[in-house]
Amino acid sequence: MSTFDVYDTTMRDGAQQEGINLSVADKLTIARHLDDLGVTHVEGGWPGANPNDTEFFARARSELDLRNATLAAFGSTRKAGTTAASDPQVQALLDAQTSVVTLVAKSHVGHVERALRTTREENLAMIADTVAHLREHGRTVMVDAEHFFDGYLLDRDYAMDCVAAAQDAGAEVVALCDTNGGMLPGQVHEAVADVLAATGARLGIHCHNDTGCAVANSMAAVDAGATHVQGTINGYGERTGNADLITVLANLQLKRGMDLVEPYRLQDATRIAHAVSEVTNYPPFSRQPYVGAGAFAHKAGLHASAIKVDPDLYQHIEPKDVGNDMRMLVSDMAGRATVELKGREIGVDLSEDEPALRRVLARVKELEQRGYTFDAADAGFELLLRREVGGSVPDYAQVESWRVMTDVRGSDAAALSEATVKMHAGGQRVVATGEGNGPVNALDHALRQALGVVYPEIEQLELVDYRVRILDAAHGTDAVTRVLIETSDGTTSWTTIGVAANIVEASWEALLDGIVYGLSRAGIPAR
Amino acid sequence: MSTFDVYDTTMRDGAQQEGINLSVADKLTIARHLDDLGVTHVEGGWPGANPNDTEFFARARSELDLRNATLAAFGSTRKAGTTAASDPQVQALLDAQTSVVTLVAKSHVGHVERALRTTREENLAMIADTVAHLREHGRTVMVDAEHFFDGYLLDRDYAMDCVAAAQDAGAEVVALCDTNGGMLPGQVHEAVADVLAATGARLGIHCHNDTGCAVANSMAAVDAGATHVQGTINGYGERTGNADLITVLANLQLKRGMDLVEPYRLQDATRIAHAVSEVTNYPPFSRQPYVGAGAFAHKAGLHASAIKVDPDLYQHIEPKDVGNDMRMLVSDMAGRATVELKGREIGVDLSEDEPALRRVLARVKELEQRGYTFDAADAGFELLLRREVGGSVPDYAQVESWRVMTDVRGSDAAALSEATVKMHAGGQRVVATGEGNGPVNALDHALRQALGVVYPEIEQLELVDYRVRILDAAHGTDAVTRVLIETSDGTTSWTTIGVAANIVEASWEALLDGIVYGLSRAGIPAR
Repeated sequence: MSTFDVYDTTMRDGAQQEGINLSVADKLTIARHLDDLGVTHVEGGWPGANPNDTEFFARARSELDLRNATLAAFGSTRKAGTTAASDPQVQALLDAQTSVVTLVAKSHVGHVERALRTTREENLAMIADTVAHLREHGRTVMVDAEHFFDGYLLDRDYAMDCVAAAQDAGAEVVALCDTNGGMLPGQVHEAVADVLAATGARLGIHCHNDTGCAVANSMAAVDAGATHVQGTINGYGERTGNADLITVLANLQLKRGMDLVEPYRLQDATRIAHAVSEVTNYPPFSRQPYVGAGAFAHKAGLHASAIKVDPDLYQHIEPKDVGNDMRMLVSDMAGRATVELKGREIGVDLSEDEPALRRVLARVKELEQRGYTFDAADAGFELLLRREVGGSVPDYAQVESWRVMTDVRGSDAAALSEATVKMHAGGQRVVATGEGNGPVNALDHALRQALGVVYPEIEQLELVDYRVRILDAAHGTDAVTRVLIETSDGTTSWTTIGVAANIVEASWEALLDGIVYGLSRAGIPAR
Repeated sequence: MSTFDVYDTTMRDGAQQEGINLSVADKLTIARHLDDLGVTHVEGGWPGANPNDTEFFARARSELDLRNATLAAFGSTRKAGTTAASDPQVQALLDAQTSVVTLVAKSHVGHVERALRTTREENLAMIADTVAHLREHGRTVMVDAEHFFDGYLLDRDYAMDCVAAAQDAGAEVVALCDTNGGMLPGQVHEAVADVLAATGARLGIHCHNDTGCAVANSMAAVDAGATHVQGTINGYGERTGNADLITVLANLQLKRGMDLVEPYRLQDATRIAHAVSEVTNYPPFSRQPYVGAGAFAHKAGLHASAIKVDPDLYQHIEPKDVGNDMRMLVSDMAGRATVELKGREIGVDLSEDEPALRRVLARVKELEQRGYTFDAADAGFELLLRREVGGSVPDYAQVESWRVMTDVRGSDAAALSEATVKMHAGGQRVVATGEGNGPVNALDHALRQALGVVYPEIEQLELVDYRVRILDAAHGTDAVTRVLIETSDGTTSWTTIGVAANIVEASWEALLDGIVYGLSRAGIPAR
């Protein structure tokens, strides 16, 4: 097909998100993931704007070997009243030595006059000069027309002049930006079609999600003739974020049949999205389209029975096409079909064992009556199922007793918790005490110390998330407490559940199950 | 304007989300929030499908006094080969005694034949019979045409027949559902316009977010003539979730100028979205359009100066229109106004006392940095304010120390908690021990016993709600625990807050403040 750019700005606009702070090493890692995904352009940052970005481009030259993507340096048009050649910021763009340079340019009269504090004419000259200067130095120049859509609605002619100035000076493409993110698809479609008709310039689109329409607005622009789409991995970005590039890519390729990346690359999308979130240290969003952990998860028993018959009736695409999987969630809405499917998922075939299936189902319903919820605790359900099906969970230890004490002396002192655990494991009696900044933390330390004597493999396991829910009852603290604990072995993680009137008891149950599950999935036998 | 339904299905389709499990009390709370938001319909659940939902409708009749919204019961068309009158599931819908009943009906040939395992004709009869039967019993009937868009693309005529069958039998509206969420706005617009032209039926829209277009698809349907929009608060729902109802509502009202709810209701949207997430215990998504904590947050430096010049250059709407705030400029102006207003609310005039106002502001900001949130703890804020303004909170007691111990003997025994509190009150040293089914319960008992010696009025006070939230460690800070405790004196109740790394310590803080607030509002002096 003709040229179409899938342009990633995760490392520049995406890094504007609160809580995201990328080191040079982080950026090199993300760039490689983006290259694996098959994007055409990777925007590395703003050389000169901060030492971090300058260093990135320097190291990228020696350390980054991109196979598919082209690296782009981002910067701004020259300052008012100067020349592009004399502007150090523009020089820094050349020094980055990328074949592609992307320039942000004002196209909104209000921003030109009130934010930039210059004239309409000077802004047009700034665009033309800077693009021409970079072209003279052999760069491919892309222009981000900032606040374009708001500017277009305010003063269509001037917005057009800005696009034309970039185009006439030799810009490869002009990306129309909904910088404030307030547009709706109809407006975007109309404006893009109008600009295309009026200027004939090659157009791109850059959207933010403030109306919840970033993806749809990007699609609308492509419908109207845009051949360059910008976005970020996981939709990172300022405020509500940028268009989620993987969602846009999957929509264009799987829904519109555009041939943008090799199918095997899209089949790596889920892994890549999660790998990038490891780098940004921003927890993945389970409801994220295509790549979210819940994107193909089904809960309703109603559906489950039919899904067994024909999964395609309940999936908008084949999950494997984006490297994801269908998951069945077990809940009180679950029927036998759900449990059977779930069993198959974890390698336990219940279709032949009717009584076991009934036992598991009855147990699930009984426990959910008491406040358990297995749709959020996969490992908890797997342990339940294996125990019901017949002791395929090793009995690592027998608990004799545990206790935890929390105390404070004086009104300003901080509380300290101390736990003691007594259990029998590996033919001996183990007793250990642990301290912590809370009862669960202290119990966790004591439990690992006690079990660690017999099972040193426990060192690999770590408590990574702890969630508490007080299930309502007539009187506050008499209510039942539900605890969900996520345990990790460094490569993967699982969630276990505990329910009890006593929050510490519920925590202990989830804590112990989390470790039992970890040891058993690692194939450790009871000693 | 003519009839337009803003139809919420948070408690039914939203509850399909992984990890969401709503009690009857949760649902009653959510329904009240939805009523405040001004939605026209609240779907309460599926009576008969599970005991929980049946109980909800029973209690709703006596406990739920909705001012704006109409409660709807959700169910399915009758079973194949029976009559609506003899179908217990249909009877359960009548027994729910709601004026509106929403029926899910198949409109996709594949689902009729392969999932429902019946004939095209019988499915049409099932729709017609069930709608007619409910109409005969005086119900307003809404029909959710399940998998409509996929069905329409597969067999347009049959999909049309299903809509017609519902319409002819007297359905008020037929909501076309993108059940698998795979549609894009163009397809939705085309199909809705076509069905409207072909049948003249009043149409609604129900979208899921699997292509990241749930909101845009809902908007496209309205553009094409739909007058009924379904969605959920915070976009909860199976897989990638449903259309975020607040985003759709804000888009329609603020972007399209549709007059759907009173402006002051939309100005409460942020609070309501967060209040509902407190009930579901699903942490709010900071990038959520309109109501997210980051929706109007600007990263420091970049635009800051220009934003000061002219905020409208960088906002797609006025944040206050949805009860949100431009966060990078949580300016003294904004903060002050709130504090001053809050002060007036509780009879403390700060307009004259500049230094006090500054002290309170500084304190609030410092505490919110540490995880406190005062919108959820009115009494906590009042105590803070009174203490800063100058000792108008009696010093009832001085804590010397407290401790709580929880222990279990044997693996099956239940845990028991025991707390000891030592404090000075009324010129004497009081020491008391209390037992409980959890550490907080035990502390509560010990605290009342100790204080009760000097302040028998404490008998009137009761802990009625206890909520815990482990604050996300994703943003760099160490995970801390936030506890909200609601205390009642029998006639009214108030909420206090505690935050600490140790969950027991956080609980103690909220517990003590709850009692201090209760004694002071009752005018009890320190003894």
